[in-house]
Amino acid sequence: MTKGTVETMTSARETVVARLKEMLGERCSTAQAVREQHGHGESYHPTLLPDAVCMPASTGEVAEIVTLCAEHEVPIVPFGAGTSLEGHVTPLRGGVTLDMREMNAILAVHPEDMDATVQAGVTREQLNLHLRDTGLFFPVDPGADATLGGMSATRASGTNAVRYGTMRENVVSLTVVMADGAILRTASRAKKSSAGYDLTRIFVGSEGTLGVITEVTVRLYGIPEAISSASCVFESIDQAVQTAVETIQCGVPVARVELLNTDAIRACNHYSKLGLPEQPTLFFEFHGSERGVGEQTETVQALAIDNGGSHWQSTSDPEERARVWRARHDMHFASISMRPGAKVWGTDVCVPISKLPECVRAVAEDIADAPFFTNMLGHVGDGNFHVGFLIDMERPEELELAQRYNDRLVRHALRLGGTCTGEHGVGYGKSRFLVEEHGAEAVHAMRLLKQAYDPKNILNPGKILPAN
Amino acid sequence: MTKGTVETMTSARETVVARLKEMLGERCSTAQAVREQHGHGESYHPTLLPDAVCMPASTGEVAEIVTLCAEHEVPIVPFGAGTSLEGHVTPLRGGVTLDMREMNAILAVHPEDMDATVQAGVTREQLNLHLRDTGLFFPVDPGADATLGGMSATRASGTNAVRYGTMRENVVSLTVVMADGAILRTASRAKKSSAGYDLTRIFVGSEGTLGVITEVTVRLYGIPEAISSASCVFESIDQAVQTAVETIQCGVPVARVELLNTDAIRACNHYSKLGLPEQPTLFFEFHGSERGVGEQTETVQALAIDNGGSHWQSTSDPEERARVWRARHDMHFASISMRPGAKVWGTDVCVPISKLPECVRAVAEDIADAPFFTNMLGHVGDGNFHVGFLIDMERPEELELAQRYNDRLVRHALRLGGTCTGEHGVGYGKSRFLVEEHGAEAVHAMRLLKQAYDPKNILNPGKILPAN
Repeated sequence: MTKGTVETMTSARETVVARLKEMLGERCSTAQAVREQHGHGESYHPTLLPDAVCMPASTGEVAEIVTLCAEHEVPIVPFGAGTSLEGHVTPLRGGVTLDMREMNAILAVHPEDMDATVQAGVTREQLNLHLRDTGLFFPVDPGADATLGGMSATRASGTNAVRYGTMRENVVSLTVVMADGAILRTASRAKKSSAGYDLTRIFVGSEGTLGVITEVTVRLYGIPEAISSASCVFESIDQAVQTAVETIQCGVPVARVELLNTDAIRACNHYSKLGLPEQPTLFFEFHGSERGVGEQTETVQALAIDNGGSHWQSTSDPEERARVWRARHDMHFASISMRPGAKVWGTDVCVPISKLPECVRAVAEDIADAPFFTNMLGHVGDGNFHVGFLIDMERPEELELAQRYNDRLVRHALRLGGTCTGEHGVGYGKSRFLVEEHGAEAVHAMRLLKQAYDPKNILNPGKILPAN
Repeated sequence: MTKGTVETMTSARETVVARLKEMLGERCSTAQAVREQHGHGESYHPTLLPDAVCMPASTGEVAEIVTLCAEHEVPIVPFGAGTSLEGHVTPLRGGVTLDMREMNAILAVHPEDMDATVQAGVTREQLNLHLRDTGLFFPVDPGADATLGGMSATRASGTNAVRYGTMRENVVSLTVVMADGAILRTASRAKKSSAGYDLTRIFVGSEGTLGVITEVTVRLYGIPEAISSASCVFESIDQAVQTAVETIQCGVPVARVELLNTDAIRACNHYSKLGLPEQPTLFFEFHGSERGVGEQTETVQALAIDNGGSHWQSTSDPEERARVWRARHDMHFASISMRPGAKVWGTDVCVPISKLPECVRAVAEDIADAPFFTNMLGHVGDGNFHVGFLIDMERPEELELAQRYNDRLVRHALRLGGTCTGEHGVGYGKSRFLVEEHGAEAVHAMRLLKQAYDPKNILNPGKILPAN
């Protein structure tokens, strides 16, 4: 992986780092290994090093750090689990990376109100483990065991957003440290409110560019009485997508509906010797009462068969469920197995669901003769769709080609009325598509917000908004 | 009703009005009757007159009007159906009222994507009538036949938000005219996106203070295969609320759950001779498949009986359903019948659902010896709760007393971790609670947004934010 040159610290930065070391002791590190660890997410973007990595323990400490950095105009990059995919955590201009993982306290669980308040460094699996005796769970599942602060900042979602919504719907309130060190709470714990501007939604998806999220209150849900899983194989992606569309339109409250293309299934067969038919495949999960889940399963099976589906399998037995979903769960490592040593470039778009077949078809044609392994999978109930490229980072021509595929993917999505990213976020990997997607006026409105909240441009500079 | 003095037009305003008349002809009116009609919503707030009322026919015309007003720093107040309750549409500083009702075209319905795009003046009933052959409906129901522009601007919700969400969840995208006349689209029609700041949610609930909403894309839902209704009577409000809480916690996807207090039921008996037991009563509506609805009904009935409920009635027959819900539907006119000629002052708060019994108890005590009729009803699944005061507007002491009750209601809600308004909005009736609810830092962040988007303060000035 290419590494950025280690910037010579200016005297302002030296002053800031010295004072941070006084303030935080060992929780402020300038060790090369620590800085390298914080110089990248999980994507193909090159590593760049922050001047220092701080691990604050409280909102108050974050406010002190931000105040100090603001005074000296030193950039600040919040860092959660480091699982972002578009260079969100790369310190493009150096400065101080705030690793939030020491702030991992679960502050309150209110079972009766079905919400929980946690520090930003708590991961979703940590929260769900904590909740295990309450009968409640936190549903948003982007795959990685991301922090709730990071998931809020990137407006994450994942497989079961089709039923439970994304972070947009599931963040009740945030505590945020503003660029001047001010601390605010965006909203009360009331389930709804019309009391003023929606500060919560301003910060959800702001990728650390408007404020540092230090606490998150999220909605919880009752663990369903019954869960069942199903899978079904189709001759064409169109048939599979049509089944997903009809499932949603019939009002089936499906918890997950995932599409894997033929290449993705082939990778799973290669990885786990599953012997699955190498055709587009849908995976379903149903949540509800015993009877409700049975009914959902029947309805969807009928839709699938009507659309030419075959090899229908469904079960509510936990072990059998895992078997049915095996291919979907193996997807990441199965892809890697297709080209050991390669880097996965994962990108995503989201289109109105009616446009998904066309989008998928167009992309499939584009990448049909790719010289490296690719896969496609989709959270098809939402029109959200991922493409993975397995590239050899030592071969710049592969990176360039993946970039071209990615550009074409985004342009198909935009042409079809969609968005350049459904859930991965912009980081700096996709900021150049922002004007194309939203128009200059909308991006100008975003820029006005950024300028109002961060006039010195110290909060994760270079992210989301394209350079002027 | 008190009327504001008719302001003498400054020459800037005269210029603007003359040019608007040239531009719009009869669609720009300065007639006293028209201005009076646009000087108030449905609340107790005094009427104040705009200098002129314009009825634009397109987003382009709105942009022209706004550009002209911006040039001369003349205030602009967007006006939908005029059903707001906190003085939202009152032109506090005169200027131009934009009556959006000529912009009532349904621009597109995408059944496969389950969304529709309409001009801001389309009402929810108009949209649902238009959708009648599609099998789809738009669920958000604030009671009044409000415009979708107005509902977006106030972040409206209503009885079935517990299942379908509020305007926050159901607005996909907006077309907005900014304070400088720029036109932008806040988002694509993709169901989810992580592509930049959430402009949509910035304008939802902004009450015309950040931009003029001219088009709205909303989510649609499949009309459920089966609907059933139920009602149940309780000895205490606590028992009723506990039943609602348990209904939510058990994951029953209830479509509506409404609480009426004893006074509210008494009014309904008085109005319609229903002979209902004069006790706290819950009304339910269930949506789903035949079997699903049956199951939901059974589950909730068991919870209600466990909590001491009696007189359980349920039915899926459409006429019978109307009978079961009769009291709830009659509520508005039943209240008025308790004091003919009086004005209804309707206020609302929302608290975490666990705090609803305490909030209701405290408020009930406060208003127990009110010298005028009061009622309480709640969208209890959301912790949202309304109080109505029937006051004689000729008696200032009643207005003052209602104000005191309202203050106490809000302070109970805030003390219990709630919000000063769950769905009515701030207007200028509740702006003085904003700092108390959100804190000075959060209100400052709101103010920065307002200044960034409307530096001349011409968009609905005096609303939401308290005077500095």
